[in-house]
This record gives sequence, structure tokens and C-alpha cells, in this order.
Amino acid sequence: MYNISLITGDGIGPELSESAISVLNTIHDKLDLKFEITTLSAGDQALSETGKALPDETVESIKQSDACMKAPVGESAADVIVVLRRMLDLYANIRPAKSYPHMPALRDDIDMVIVRENTEDLYIGKEFSLGDSSVALRIISEAASKRIAKYAFETAKQRDSMRKVTCVHKSNVMRITDGMFAKACADVSKDYPDITFEEMYVDACAMNLIRQPEQFDVVVTTNLFGDILSDESSQVVGGLGMAPAANIGDNFALFEPVHGAAFDIAGQNIANPSSFLLSMKMMLDWLGNKHNDSKCIEVGQKLESTIFNLVKTGVKTKDIGGDKSTSEFTKQITDNL
Amino acid sequence: MYNISLITGDGIGPELSESAISVLNTIHDKLDLKFEITTLSAGDQALSETGKALPDETVESIKQSDACMKAPVGESAADVIVVLRRMLDLYANIRPAKSYPHMPALRDDIDMVIVRENTEDLYIGKEFSLGDSSVALRIISEAASKRIAKYAFETAKQRDSMRKVTCVHKSNVMRITDGMFAKACADVSKDYPDITFEEMYVDACAMNLIRQPEQFDVVVTTNLFGDILSDESSQVVGGLGMAPAANIGDNFALFEPVHGAAFDIAGQNIANPSSFLLSMKMMLDWLGNKHNDSKCIEVGQKLESTIFNLVKTGVKTKDIGGDKSTSEFTKQITDNL
Ligand SMILES: CC(C)[C@H](C(=O)O)[C@@H](O)C(=O)O
Ligand SMILES: CC(C)[C@H](C(=O)O)[C@@H](O)C(=O)O
Repeated sequence: MYNISLITGDGIGPELSESAISVLNTIHDKLDLKFEITTLSAGDQALSETGKALPDETVESIKQSDACMKAPVGESAADVIVVLRRMLDLYANIRPAKSYPHMPALRDDIDMVIVRENTEDLYIGKEFSLGDSSVALRIISEAASKRIAKYAFETAKQRDSMRKVTCVHKSNVMRITDGMFAKACADVSKDYPDITFEEMYVDACAMNLIRQPEQFDVVVTTNLFGDILSDESSQVVGGLGMAPAANIGDNFALFEPVHGAAFDIAGQNIANPSSFLLSMKMMLDWLGNKHNDSKCIEVGQKLESTIFNLVKTGVKTKDIGGDKSTSEFTKQITDNL
Repeated sequence: MYNISLITGDGIGPELSESAISVLNTIHDKLDLKFEITTLSAGDQALSETGKALPDETVESIKQSDACMKAPVGESAADVIVVLRRMLDLYANIRPAKSYPHMPALRDDIDMVIVRENTEDLYIGKEFSLGDSSVALRIISEAASKRIAKYAFETAKQRDSMRKVTCVHKSNVMRITDGMFAKACADVSKDYPDITFEEMYVDACAMNLIRQPEQFDVVVTTNLFGDILSDESSQVVGGLGMAPAANIGDNFALFEPVHGAAFDIAGQNIANPSSFLLSMKMMLDWLGNKHNDSKCIEVGQKLESTIFNLVKTGVKTKDIGGDKSTSEFTKQITDNL
């Protein structure tokens, strides 16, 4: 029995959460993998109701759970997710980008993953105004850089792919901070002689993600560059409809879609739950590995293939050219699990 | 008579410079617009020969010229271009991205320009190491933000387009620095009631540049985001083969291609000079406006249309699917001017 904390979020968050709950309950009932779900509040609504975007009870419940799923949050997103990433030391933000059949990717042979450092860089929130000027501190540490580099190489080692790690930075301009990051990655690469290591400036990477996305395997980069490049790479493989993310630490992990709260389509039962459900698949993998529970991994694979088979046969939501509502698409998944 | 200083650069720089000189000489001879060209050294070669990537004589010559053209520079690029931008207060980095016929753009109706703040942000070079950590200062000032915002709105006003300015930032995370930038842009927008103003987070922009690039007109952003997004947008319209840039200040301007020194193809007479020559077209525009010299503007238009007509009829370099060498392509241009 796994205890899953679920932040239901804002905008389309509650609809996606309903979809996720229904899928988890189906897994519980049909596939004999047991879950207990605790829904939690955080985000714009929590802020207006309790004065806090991230209420203490929410944090406490998350800490007591085995893993957290977080639906998208609105304007107060940073107060929820950036805080949680740092508080729970979820240092690796994992964002796969893969061409799936029947999705409008720029090419059909893309299979990469961005490993984004998730605890420092300009996200530490140290900013000051000095009269008419303002300054933000960009912090890069050797320890965090080595830790994420190691995560990236381990990821490359486990993937069934070209075994390459591309370290993306801007050390020609930020010689000390990105110099430190690049050196940490290069140092760690020595422990992985079978894995190709390359470096690329962030501007060149933004270009190459369009020019030859199939040449990337694992990309490791600092927090803000990872933010930008992962949104870009999601679009390279056809959009945020199928873009999951995992925030992983040594002892805990949190799973969320890359996309936001999409207030413009909220409450209409048309949002695509796939990104959130693919992040559930990442959770099942993580739980399986952590608890040595092969059942979790199997169920995760089943969930993923169910989603793809549906999409492949044209059973899909409006954003990717289908006509299914959120709940209809979810029901197709639960029926097919 | 205009005095043009020309940094010949590294890698493919000298070949592109030869092409540029030949075109300027042809304009001088055939079109009766007079130029004197002073070639200057800066970059890797200057560094190894003189110990300085940007020799003092080069700076002095640039200052005495009417405008500067800079071919790409190698590993020491930052020591040349970032220093020149700040030293000469070339605060606006203008990077158009346009779908041209017969270029592999993602769509054929893209016509945007990125107006990148060019003097501050993480480019100020204030970095420190603190034991195992390092810190870079990201400086944003209200004055520089307002100045670039004004430039962006003036650009939108003069363009024959949808009259929209999109301010790109990450104020949900960098509340103070990007908050200041966003507010400066919003404040300036009030002076331009006829121009639509919108804001977009940088991650969303990286995505939307692929998803709906035709919806952008003028994008205004901070230095590093502008670096990343302009390389991306060049690729969105088919690559760096046709991507010029202008670094513009109140009294002086410097023109360069967006691409780098491309050492891998240097010395082979295969580089595409179009980006550099289109930056010459931007120079002709700038000179024409500054000196109220309509001849410059006419010649610039002629240069641009000559390049496009050649590309359209398949007369092009290898990188964009043709078979012409750098010198052959240049000769076609000079013959047709
Ligand atoms: C909401 C925002 C703070 C967040 C980030 O920048 O990390 C989001 O864009 C993401 O990528 O998860
Ligand atoms: C060479 C480098 C310092 C430069 C920059 O980052 O500004 C380049 O990428 C550019 O965009 O002109």
C-alpha cells in the first residue's frame, strides 16, 4: 500500500486530479496494486482561502506520504513548487521528450531527457533592489552540480539509447558559475568512460533542439536553462499535451505535468490528462525502483502503453486533434487497464 | 563617404570579411555610395598575437569609424563582443527572424524581431567564488529596461506589421529583477496606445516560438533570454544561414551575424555569407536613418533583394541546399547589384 499525496491545484488542476484519482483507483481495484490517496490544497485557491499558497498541513501531509503528485497551480505556482523542490531537496527535475506516434513532433525519432538541476541557480530567490537597480544572485555550487551530473550519467547508463550526456551551460559568459557547473560535469564524466560527454552553450542548444533534436540523449543543465529548454523540447515533440516531469530527491519525489493551470480551458472537461498521467507512470517507476516492487513498474508500463495505444488509434483529447473529453479519455484508459 | 571598421574575426570570419569587402567595394564603384574600409583584428588570433582579444588600436579605430561590421570571433568572443557592447553602450541588440522563400522555416509567415537588452543582466561579468560555491550577479536597472522598452515600441511602430510588443521575462521566479523589467515595459507601453502589449514567461516563449511563431511581432527581453531566444528563432526560420544582428546605441552601431566562427568549415570557401551581408543591410539602414541618406536605404534594399532573389532561384551555398562556394555566391551578388 502506497500513500499518495495529491495537490489538486488550480485551473484545470482539479479535472486532472479527478482523472488521476480515477486511474489510481482502477489500478487499486483491477491490478491489485494498493494506494491510499490524500488530496491536498496548495496554490491560488489555498492562498485566497488560507492566506498561504502552501499551507503547513499540506507540507506535513506530503512529508508523510510515499510520493506526491501535483496538478498544475496558477499564479502562485512558484510559491508552491519552487519551495517544495528546495524544502524536500528534490534536486533532479527529469523531463523526457519523446516523439510519439500521431503526435505532431518535428521528427519521429526524438528520445531525449532533460535532467535539470532543481535547487539552486536564480531560483534561490535572493533578490534585492538598490534604488533604480535590482540584483538577483545566481548561485551554483560544486556539490549540487556534481550531484546532478551524477544523476544524469546514471540516467544515461540506464537508458536504452545512445548513451550520451550533453552538458548545457553558458560558461563563455558566466565563467565562474557555469565554469564550475561545466567542470563538475566533466569531472563526473570521468567515472563513466562508456558514456559520451559533450558540452554545448545554451544558445546553441536552443537552436539544435530544433535543428537536430534526434542527436540528444541526456541533457544536463542548470535550473533556469532547464526550465526554458524543457518547455522548448516539449514543443519539439508536439506540445505540452504529453509532457510529464519528475522532481526527484534521495528519499522523496514529486510528479507533475510540465504544463500550467491553463485557466482559459478550465472547467470545460476538455483538458488532456496525459501529461499528468505520464507523470504518474514516472511515479510508478520511481516507487518500483525504490521499494523493489516490480508490480509498480509493470503497472507503469501498462499505463503508458494504454495511453499510447489510445492516442495511436485516434482516441484523444481536442488539443492533439481528437474529440474526447477529459472524462471520456480517462474512462477509456481505466476500461483498458 | 562612410568609414567602416571591419573586425575580420576567426574561423570563417576572414572569408566572410572578404565577401563583405567585395560587396562594399562594388557598392562603392557601381552604386556610387562611398565607403572606406579599415580592417581590424580582434578575437582568438589577436589574443595569441598581441595577448589581448580586443587590442586598444582596434577599439580606437572602431571609435573613429561611422559604423562597425564584426565577423564572428572564436573562443574569445565574449571578450570582444560583450566588452564592445558595453563600452560603446550599444544597448539594443536587434535580431530579426523572417521566413524567406526557399528556406526551411517551420512556417512561411513568420516575421518577427527580437529586441534584446544588450548591456546588463548576467552579462556584466560580476562573478565570485566562495569556496565550493559561486555566485553571479544579475543586474537589471529601471533606466536600461525603459530604454530598451522604448526601442522595442519604436521598432513596432515603424514596422509594417501587427504592431505588437511581447515582453518576455521570468518574473514569477525573479520577482524583483524581472519584476522591474516587466514593469518598465508596461510603463512604457502606456505611451504607445496603438501598440498591443503582452507579457510572456520565457519558458512559454521558448515553446510558443515553435508552436505559433507567426503570432510574434516585436519581442523585448533581457540580455540572456534574448541570447537564447534569438538563436532559437533563427532556427525556427530555417537556421543561422540568414540571421543578421545589429547592436545599436544612440551614437554608434555594430553589425554581426548571429552565428559563430564555425571552425569546422573554416578555410573551405563554403560558408554562407548571407547572415553577415544581411547585417550589412541593417548597417545601411542605420546609416541612412542617422545621416538622412536615402541612398543608403535604397542600396540596402537592393542588397537584400539581390540575396533573396538568388536564394529563390536556387543560387545558394551548401548549408541551405545549394552548391555555390562563398566566393561564387558573393560574385553573383556583386554581378547583380
Ligand atoms: C511555475 C514555475 C515557477 C516553474 C519553474 O520555472 O520551474 C515552471 O515553469 C516549471 O518549469 O515547473
Ligand atoms: C559569443 C557570446 C558572448 C554572444 C552572447 O552570448 O551574447 C553570442 O552568443 C551572441 O549572441 O552574440
